[in-house]
Amino acid sequence: MTIQEFSAHLPSARQLAQNLLGSLQRATRDPAGGVTRPSYGEGEQVAHTLVAEQACAMGLEVTTDAALNTYMTLPGTDRSLPGVVIGSHLDSVARGGNYDGAAGVVAGLAAIHLLQEIGISPAFDITVMGVRAEESAWFRHSYIGSKAALGLLEPAALDARRIDTQKTLAEHITELGGNPGALASGHAFLRSARIRAYVEVHIEQAPSLVQRKHPLAIGTAIPGNVRYPNITVSGTTAHVGLPHRFRNDALKAAAEFVSEMEALWRAWETQGKPMAFTVGRFHTDIDNDATTKVPGIACFSVDMRAYDENDVRTLDQIAKQIAGNLEKRHGVRFDFGERTTAPVAKTDTAMSDAFTRLAAKAGIPAEPLPSPASHDAAVFAGAGIPIGLILIRNEHGSHNPDEHMELDDLVAGINVLTRWLAE
Amino acid sequence: MTIQEFSAHLPSARQLAQNLLGSLQRATRDPAGGVTRPSYGEGEQVAHTLVAEQACAMGLEVTTDAALNTYMTLPGTDRSLPGVVIGSHLDSVARGGNYDGAAGVVAGLAAIHLLQEIGISPAFDITVMGVRAEESAWFRHSYIGSKAALGLLEPAALDARRIDTQKTLAEHITELGGNPGALASGHAFLRSARIRAYVEVHIEQAPSLVQRKHPLAIGTAIPGNVRYPNITVSGTTAHVGLPHRFRNDALKAAAEFVSEMEALWRAWETQGKPMAFTVGRFHTDIDNDATTKVPGIACFSVDMRAYDENDVRTLDQIAKQIAGNLEKRHGVRFDFGERTTAPVAKTDTAMSDAFTRLAAKAGIPAEPLPSPASHDAAVFAGAGIPIGLILIRNEHGSHNPDEHMELDDLVAGINVLTRWLAE
Repeated sequence: MTIQEFSAHLPSARQLAQNLLGSLQRATRDPAGGVTRPSYGEGEQVAHTLVAEQACAMGLEVTTDAALNTYMTLPGTDRSLPGVVIGSHLDSVARGGNYDGAAGVVAGLAAIHLLQEIGISPAFDITVMGVRAEESAWFRHSYIGSKAALGLLEPAALDARRIDTQKTLAEHITELGGNPGALASGHAFLRSARIRAYVEVHIEQAPSLVQRKHPLAIGTAIPGNVRYPNITVSGTTAHVGLPHRFRNDALKAAAEFVSEMEALWRAWETQGKPMAFTVGRFHTDIDNDATTKVPGIACFSVDMRAYDENDVRTLDQIAKQIAGNLEKRHGVRFDFGERTTAPVAKTDTAMSDAFTRLAAKAGIPAEPLPSPASHDAAVFAGAGIPIGLILIRNEHGSHNPDEHMELDDLVAGINVLTRWLAE
Repeated sequence: MTIQEFSAHLPSARQLAQNLLGSLQRATRDPAGGVTRPSYGEGEQVAHTLVAEQACAMGLEVTTDAALNTYMTLPGTDRSLPGVVIGSHLDSVARGGNYDGAAGVVAGLAAIHLLQEIGISPAFDITVMGVRAEESAWFRHSYIGSKAALGLLEPAALDARRIDTQKTLAEHITELGGNPGALASGHAFLRSARIRAYVEVHIEQAPSLVQRKHPLAIGTAIPGNVRYPNITVSGTTAHVGLPHRFRNDALKAAAEFVSEMEALWRAWETQGKPMAFTVGRFHTDIDNDATTKVPGIACFSVDMRAYDENDVRTLDQIAKQIAGNLEKRHGVRFDFGERTTAPVAKTDTAMSDAFTRLAAKAGIPAEPLPSPASHDAAVFAGAGIPIGLILIRNEHGSHNPDEHMELDDLVAGINVLTRWLAE
């Protein structure tokens, strides 16, 4: 098939994507702006229903697992072969954008539609997976749906409470008809030996592609991270007039910690070592602080990420060293509290090379790029499954109502994905 | 009169102080710890009543002004002469200590009692002043009572709302029988030409005297300050994975501001230039922050103080420069918001010298010391009245229930104060 022949079918895939993204947006619009699809909440549930309806209309096999992930499968001619999973999540942060997650599921369905239009019947199953609960904002746990599908969900996560409802994850899953008991016992709906590859199409959550003026990038890696959601620095509350030598100032120690880690990031940048250090929350004691008091308490969150396991470990060690020095300098104590980690995930070289080659063939500029954000693909990589990642240009970042993806850029991603499936 | 003769009368002054401080503590005890005497609230009102009752029992003239400051006067033999005012405040922070403020009023009454015991009748009036609303924690305004007494209260302060009741200062004054209208028109109950000196006895709000093992210090100056109760740094909320070059991180800029001002303080310390830089409150956006977001907003308070007007001005300028540099580096904006200032107040050299000489005569170690904290005396100095300041040793700082003054140390202060009045 020539490029001209292939391209003739693209408008119909574009129409499908446009309609489905429009339905998703209308059904989950938040009156306060953007869309809201809480993990295991109404907006996410509606999104799963809408994509499942589309899949049924396309004649795909539709099913769910104990965690209520949605699987939409184009059966292969030889069902004994391991299949391909094209997945992304259907939840969003509160007042988030329409494309973060959902665009990947839509791309998978549009690619299958394109195969159907052209009349290609692959030997292996192609499954589009609508993943549950990727956004850690709701249950403060990452990758709930993809971990559950692979039997990897930590049982403790089932007791985590959603920040708005205060109901547990287990309660929410039960309410929607799922089976938290099966998840607690580690039941795996997906077995890695039965999956030849996992592909995720996702908007870029930084403006690198906008800056480069490229519609796509081929993801090379998903960063690993170490997170401390609640570091507490304890000193001594005191009067604003207290001389320096008598102070045990929790705020100053915490601020200097942030400044020293920020300086480290700038140093790594100049060395070309990619990382990120983010303090998302930072508070003195809201009930007792005052302009005229030296703060005895400061609490803050830390997220440190890099694309190399050694770098993640080094960042963790340096953070502890800096805190240790500040404890001595200020006479305070750092309690790092809860710690969570996610391993670095590298994409499969053969898949990435194929994506790059096929994009070039279609005349689409698409350079390799490490993903700035985390994705469900990391869980599949962790389970030993080869992963591929196609990043779509996106303006104004994500996790906000101004997130903006051009449909033509998504179609470029669908184009590359379909060519790869057809090969 | 010999030291022995004078000393024979001290136990009776000690008893008066002990009884009155005991009554104050019992009447204003907070079930949650310490004492609570809100400005123009129940605890402060009770304290004014208790000291007025003591003054009546001693035969003093008792009156109040439009702001409900309490004046307790031992009439002089020549009432045409300008008098001496011995003042301090009777409010406290929430769950504060029994001595911060009240000890100075008790010391004044005990000194008059001692003069009465010994049989000394000074030519000029001696007035003990129970000052209202010194603690800025309640109305976020400093020195309300002493400014009002001198006709210097900013009319805007009358509209300030108390942080717990949300009622205005004017409403609170009216409720207790005072006259906010007179204060709004700048009526002065005290005229500076009629006051030959203002003396304040106050606990030290730092552990310098504990460290030196001295019961007293003679205050040399009260720091001037510039305060920004609510600086707002505005950047752009973004996803945790955003690369460094795309970020406008409000939190990092705010933390680096704190770190750079802290470094400045350390540098001034080594140069022997006294100052203090305090950030008492520091918050990212509590409704929207998260471990996985780059903060778009950070708010914090700043108090900068020094004992030289030039130093205060320099600190203010340096803070603005640092903020300007950080605006460029991080692509954020600093809005300093409301600004309040208090001038540096120097104590009267002749009075301080007299205190030092009289302490030495009584065998009490009392070196000169700049006051770490602000006091009503600063307002009197600002009105051109010579001020004296006697600082009393105090453990565990102030503004907390563990504040601790030894009664014998207060008696040492009463001893010096009475000798000075007798001269």
